[in-house]
Amino acid sequence: MKLITLTTDYGEKDPFAGAVKGAIYSELEDVRIVDISHSVSPFHLMEAAYIIQNAYQNFPKGSIHVIGVDSELTPETNHIAVKLDGHYFICANNGIISLLTKDIVPEEKVEINIHDRTLTNFTVLDVFVKTACHIARGGTLGVIGKNIDNIRQLTGIAPVINTARNQISGNVIYIDNYGNVVSNITKKLFDEVGKGRSFKLEARGADITKIYKQYSDAINFDIEKSKREEEGKKLAVFNSGGYIELAIYKSNPSTVGSAASLFGLNYRDTVMINFTDK
Amino acid sequence: MKLITLTTDYGEKDPFAGAVKGAIYSELEDVRIVDISHSVSPFHLMEAAYIIQNAYQNFPKGSIHVIGVDSELTPETNHIAVKLDGHYFICANNGIISLLTKDIVPEEKVEINIHDRTLTNFTVLDVFVKTACHIARGGTLGVIGKNIDNIRQLTGIAPVINTARNQISGNVIYIDNYGNVVSNITKKLFDEVGKGRSFKLEARGADITKIYKQYSDAINFDIEKSKREEEGKKLAVFNSGGYIELAIYKSNPSTVGSAASLFGLNYRDTVMINFTDK
Amino acid sequence: MKLITLTTDYGEKDPFAGAVKGAIYSELEDVRIVDISHSVSPFHLMEAAYIIQNAYQNFPKGSIHVIGVDSELTPETNHIAVKLDGHYFICANNGIISLLTKDIVPEEKVEINIHDRTLTNFTVLDVFVKTACHIARGGTLGVIGKNIDNIRQLTGIAPVINTARNQISGNVIYIDNYGNVVSNITKKLFDEVGKGRSFKLEARGADITKIYKQYSDAINFDIEKSKREEEGKKLAVFNSGGYIELAIYKSNPSTVGSAASLFGLNYRDTVMINFTDK
Repeated sequence: MKLITLTTDYGEKDPFAGAVKGAIYSELEDVRIVDISHSVSPFHLMEAAYIIQNAYQNFPKGSIHVIGVDSELTPETNHIAVKLDGHYFICANNGIISLLTKDIVPEEKVEINIHDRTLTNFTVLDVFVKTACHIARGGTLGVIGKNIDNIRQLTGIAPVINTARNQISGNVIYIDNYGNVVSNITKKLFDEVGKGRSFKLEARGADITKIYKQYSDAINFDIEKSKREEEGKKLAVFNSGGYIELAIYKSNPSTVGSAASLFGLNYRDTVMINFTDK
Repeated sequence: MKLITLTTDYGEKDPFAGAVKGAIYSELEDVRIVDISHSVSPFHLMEAAYIIQNAYQNFPKGSIHVIGVDSELTPETNHIAVKLDGHYFICANNGIISLLTKDIVPEEKVEINIHDRTLTNFTVLDVFVKTACHIARGGTLGVIGKNIDNIRQLTGIAPVINTARNQISGNVIYIDNYGNVVSNITKKLFDEVGKGRSFKLEARGADITKIYKQYSDAINFDIEKSKREEEGKKLAVFNSGGYIELAIYKSNPSTVGSAASLFGLNYRDTVMINFTDK
Repeated sequence: MKLITLTTDYGEKDPFAGAVKGAIYSELEDVRIVDISHSVSPFHLMEAAYIIQNAYQNFPKGSIHVIGVDSELTPETNHIAVKLDGHYFICANNGIISLLTKDIVPEEKVEINIHDRTLTNFTVLDVFVKTACHIARGGTLGVIGKNIDNIRQLTGIAPVINTARNQISGNVIYIDNYGNVVSNITKKLFDEVGKGRSFKLEARGADITKIYKQYSDAINFDIEKSKREEEGKKLAVFNSGGYIELAIYKSNPSTVGSAASLFGLNYRDTVMINFTDK
């Protein structure tokens, strides 16, 4: 059964997500719709890209991913369908594909040209549903769009390495449900630049010299539980997406506080790593 | 495969929505359950009606829509199942059907009478699930209820047209995830009364003389992007549901602010349109 | 079709729930995934247990329930799969099963031992998905784990009966979407101890002498609607889970206020019932 995922900034309350699902089921009897997220911050392309990037690879190849964030057709922004990494993405040509991946070259990319009937301002319902259902039926991208050479590139926020290669300057790209703070510095980049050297990670209130493989590695289980420092312990991990993440052990943002609140970190804030020469 | 949708005020956290889905799957192996929304404000019939109204038509005819808002059986409020516009609605007889539509006459309407076993106070689980599954199996309404002549009518808040027919006085009926403010004045009414005349729309902080077809029509793309007024631009559109909506271009309520916050508008506030005689 | 439910503290926004669903659909074509809740408060075992307890029984026997709350593998906490009441539960051995039920003895319980490949810190994706899919395919627990005699018991918060048996001292265990306050005192316990005697229930601002069967029983429908005290009426009911719940009639926490706010009650606060000797 073909699989269509939805990632939008519609929120949990509004009729839009339900309307989109109804429209898909009206076109296709035998399809599976999976919500990735409807709680992307409004118009927040970086957040949407981070969420999709860390979810889509787990779906079967051939899955169709509809992105309903900043998707209105304008004189500057057309609609595209892209085949990438064996998956289909349907979205506005607003740069989100370039935030999703810099490394993977799309296999196919078309500008959707099925806007002949009067548009409402509910793009995803009108155009994206038709496109997704077309692909789900086994249709080719060529039928619903024309090949394009380039899609919009957003420079976004990429980590910078200094010329002496002893410093990585990155940024906060995502704050998760636990209030944990995700930087754009990957384990891969950290290992390549750091080459095993000691380091100090600094970001506002954070001052860290060790990055763990999992959250509980920060806890010394040899110490008796009552004497252990657990609750509220500040730490850094390589998260499941491969990024350096600043976290609070078992944080609940509304009670003990979160990494975001305790370190005072927000989206785009700087995360700096200085390596010490051996 | 039969399709049952759920619209409730259970929220995203509580066990109720999961319990309802489990109960349906326990009765029917071959059914599709779709969440329209579980984030209706508690007991807010107008909000629930707006959400369902703008979602249900996209589902295939014959879909079954369970409404779990203000649904307790009381001496004054019975339970009903209504066939309307080719769709089935199961809800309390609290007036919500009259808010959903004034124009479409129900094809069938019954008072549900399968309350013989001891009721818990979890109406939707007890009665609505059984009713929905009965309909999904192809059962008739007559088997689970008795025909009734009338269902409760709520006057709700309808726009008023003055005798000179140069003024429409409407109200805010919904505020969406972007903080955009939806009035109860439809494009149809606006066109009928206005007949192409100039107008001024006033609503607290809002003072508007043009209503766009889509959000980006408010932006002049001929001007260079850096010089364009985009962010935070106040505008009005005919939204995808056909209503006049006050919006902020690309608004994020938690950062740039929303139409609701910037105009100072709340649910039920007045939206007034004065037409100028030609 | 096999049914896998998800209960987690991932929230509505993050990529985790989508990733888990994608991973399951990648392993199994013919499976149904149902969200129970992703909005458990972070690491809140009691809340997760309450939600699952009040949802799982409605699902068909043989359903598989994945619990992604406090699920990291640590030197102190292994991963378990438990068959209980005809249902399968997959979770960390953190005590949550003991909060779910004290009365039902598990039919089977194993420590999961399929952690041979490198773990990420995304336990649910790595281990729980594989375990759930194994069970869904009809596999036995013995293949993915070794039998264990005991699982961790949490004493949690259980109501206390005094020796004179005229007092039950309980606690708040859950606050729901309506702000209604659920105690850990069941109707069963109340009836056993009270034996029909008069009583007074006290809890901060609450002072109650009657517990209703359903919310609207608190309202006198013989009085004309305009003269009736309805809105904001404080009451107690035996809720659909069988617990004593303090409620406000048709409460909307963001407008009229909720039982939690009006009584000033929080999680773990005391709910005391004193019975009067006849």
